[in-house]
Amino acid sequence: MRCEVVAVGTELLLGQIVDTNSAWIGEQLALAGIDSHFQTKVGDNHARMVSVLRLALERSDAVIVCGGLGPTQDDITREAIAEVMGVSLELDEAAASRIEAMFSGRGRRMPMNNLRQAEVPVGATAIADPQPGTAPGLICPVAGTGDPTRPGSEKVIYAVPGVPREMKVLVGEVIVPDLVRRSGVSSTIVSRTLRTWGESESGLAERLAPRVAELDRRFDAGEGGSVTIAYLASGIEGIKVRLTAKAADTVTAEALLAEEEAEVRAELGDLVFGVNDETIEASVLSLLRARGLTLGVAESLTGGLMGARICDVPGASDVFRGSIVSYASDVKFSVLGVPAGPVVTAEAAMAMATGARRVLGSDVAVAVTGVAGPDPQEGIAPGTVYVGLDLGDVDGPKGVEAFEVKLPGGRAEVRQFSVITAMNALRTRLLLCQPDGG
Amino acid sequence: MRCEVVAVGTELLLGQIVDTNSAWIGEQLALAGIDSHFQTKVGDNHARMVSVLRLALERSDAVIVCGGLGPTQDDITREAIAEVMGVSLELDEAAASRIEAMFSGRGRRMPMNNLRQAEVPVGATAIADPQPGTAPGLICPVAGTGDPTRPGSEKVIYAVPGVPREMKVLVGEVIVPDLVRRSGVSSTIVSRTLRTWGESESGLAERLAPRVAELDRRFDAGEGGSVTIAYLASGIEGIKVRLTAKAADTVTAEALLAEEEAEVRAELGDLVFGVNDETIEASVLSLLRARGLTLGVAESLTGGLMGARICDVPGASDVFRGSIVSYASDVKFSVLGVPAGPVVTAEAAMAMATGARRVLGSDVAVAVTGVAGPDPQEGIAPGTVYVGLDLGDVDGPKGVEAFEVKLPGGRAEVRQFSVITAMNALRTRLLLCQPDGG
Repeated sequence: MRCEVVAVGTELLLGQIVDTNSAWIGEQLALAGIDSHFQTKVGDNHARMVSVLRLALERSDAVIVCGGLGPTQDDITREAIAEVMGVSLELDEAAASRIEAMFSGRGRRMPMNNLRQAEVPVGATAIADPQPGTAPGLICPVAGTGDPTRPGSEKVIYAVPGVPREMKVLVGEVIVPDLVRRSGVSSTIVSRTLRTWGESESGLAERLAPRVAELDRRFDAGEGGSVTIAYLASGIEGIKVRLTAKAADTVTAEALLAEEEAEVRAELGDLVFGVNDETIEASVLSLLRARGLTLGVAESLTGGLMGARICDVPGASDVFRGSIVSYASDVKFSVLGVPAGPVVTAEAAMAMATGARRVLGSDVAVAVTGVAGPDPQEGIAPGTVYVGLDLGDVDGPKGVEAFEVKLPGGRAEVRQFSVITAMNALRTRLLLCQPDGG
Repeated sequence: MRCEVVAVGTELLLGQIVDTNSAWIGEQLALAGIDSHFQTKVGDNHARMVSVLRLALERSDAVIVCGGLGPTQDDITREAIAEVMGVSLELDEAAASRIEAMFSGRGRRMPMNNLRQAEVPVGATAIADPQPGTAPGLICPVAGTGDPTRPGSEKVIYAVPGVPREMKVLVGEVIVPDLVRRSGVSSTIVSRTLRTWGESESGLAERLAPRVAELDRRFDAGEGGSVTIAYLASGIEGIKVRLTAKAADTVTAEALLAEEEAEVRAELGDLVFGVNDETIEASVLSLLRARGLTLGVAESLTGGLMGARICDVPGASDVFRGSIVSYASDVKFSVLGVPAGPVVTAEAAMAMATGARRVLGSDVAVAVTGVAGPDPQEGIAPGTVYVGLDLGDVDGPKGVEAFEVKLPGGRAEVRQFSVITAMNALRTRLLLCQPDGG
């Protein structure tokens, strides 16, 4: 099964917006075992969109078109797909009602233009957005492209809005499962991503190798359903372990997935910090919230990135008190109370954490100091980073600690890995203190 | 003149890396007046790369291929281009010498693999990277695709490395000018981007309208050479005004550009904060450095983003002392000395700046407080932001001030606009103090 991605929008070609949707869709396809050999950006131009869609259908079995489903005259994805299908557009009454209901639910009158969004190529299906928006996605089988002896084997164009939030729901919950179903096996697919930190991609694969062997054995023995495991290194987002379960029905598939998640968690333990879109910052904030603790941060080489990432988590304000970005050494001395001397050391990292806890009045604190590069500092190589933790009286008297890591990559990568390493250290430490008070 | 962009790399299709290069190249092409109708991502696969290149040459006059020029067996862009050209590869002695010299200059032995990077399709030209790297770019005219009566009219494939820094130099300094030259007019093109903040895109266009009319008049009168002006809103990077001068020779083109930059600066004045890739943070750090001043920051809704952006400027450490991220209100009170009470006010912003200056021991300080959204806070609407400045004794006794702005967009946009608005306020204020001490 091959599926291409087409991103629609003149603003993408002009570089006014970077197309991050295609990369995200490519990742979902890869994790579901669907090949994607080409991804194309095309402007809001009917003839060029039609030519791109026709070419994609020649090369592949399916196409996901992203964007151009809005209510304005620029939004011509529906028309382009209809031309490729050789059909006209018709109003989908159910979709029209959903759009009208959404406007009236907000006490607003619906502009007539918005009814355009309920138009659907004849033979296509409108997908009701599980999180109601105004642009329904489309599933558009293209007649004459399949095996005539096998109904439902036509090639297919999927259309989704360009708004990332709406696109992700439709692709993740509807389109990828539909693609997997069309790939020939009549089955249900469900999947889940476990995010990890603390072990390399190959290290994870090694630890899960016996489990993968067992899954292969079951599959070969035809013991009903199948589960696959895939890995993806994603920078500051961690290393992802994606579990995909396929079975004759949803109940069985969900049961397989639940069993597999339990097996993987039993092997990986605390390496797993989150599920699906949960960041490590969100995970840390949840742990702190459950324990009634507040957080302070002290940063040096990351310059504020750790605080900025923490604030990106909705509802951070009930836990996060702030960050002391002590870029200059003497700010570490004067504000955080670090003893005068070298500042890229375990001792400095601990003193920074203690200082942050005191200055910010937080229950616990995490600190990073190190060398982002490209040049050495205090004779210390780029990528050398110390993480300090001060758990205060949360966990008895031994609440202050630090460790060194050597991080790979350039200046930007070292900063990103510093943040996830520090957040992960705090997370694993918090797991040792029970929510009911350690 | 039409030019497509092809990004090469299986990791792009898998979503492991977001392809930002194509967007950047698209912007450069648009600013130079070159149409780009399609952009394609393709994996490291010979047959598929060849098919994508052939298709792009059918649809367009030129193709920029990005990536796949490295020294490993995966890097097969050279081979794919040679097949499209119908030629073999040969070693470019000059390129080989440059690569060998680079290794020996670093006291390292060159792995034989790296000589692959000096192989060039017969008939192609290796571009010496103006900032020496190991992968030379390529200019590859494709025989038989041009007008036989017009030598040099062949269609052309350009190849550049996928490393953004190297790609930008080659595309900006060599390829776009070459494309413009090939577009038919035998002339030289030079261009420059002025970055601005403080006026909307349409406001800039209105202020420069008389100048554009004058440029049009000169062009119609055939008064030698031409200059065009284009605008591009780029979020936290400001609103860009791109000047492009075309003339029979470089000296004339540069003179036209210099004249036009002077005219535009005369009209826009201090709205211009940087040239080409210079960020507003870099501009502020330069102004501070020239005045011998250090900088402290106090942030609330931006959570550390302002500090992180400042640290991204190489050499920030001699000016930037740090940032107090006072996310919780009582951190504003206790650490920064903000008077207890509402914290989304001009008074709080001023007190935060004064507090940052005192706590961080900096000469000047800038502060932001406001509501990122999505919900109101203290009854104040999202997008409401106060910027505070404390210039200390740099500029007499009236050194503390604040103002309110209403910023558009969601949570992320409000944060980004908060940073550039605050940095711009500090910049314009610093311009009033002479470098020799105000």
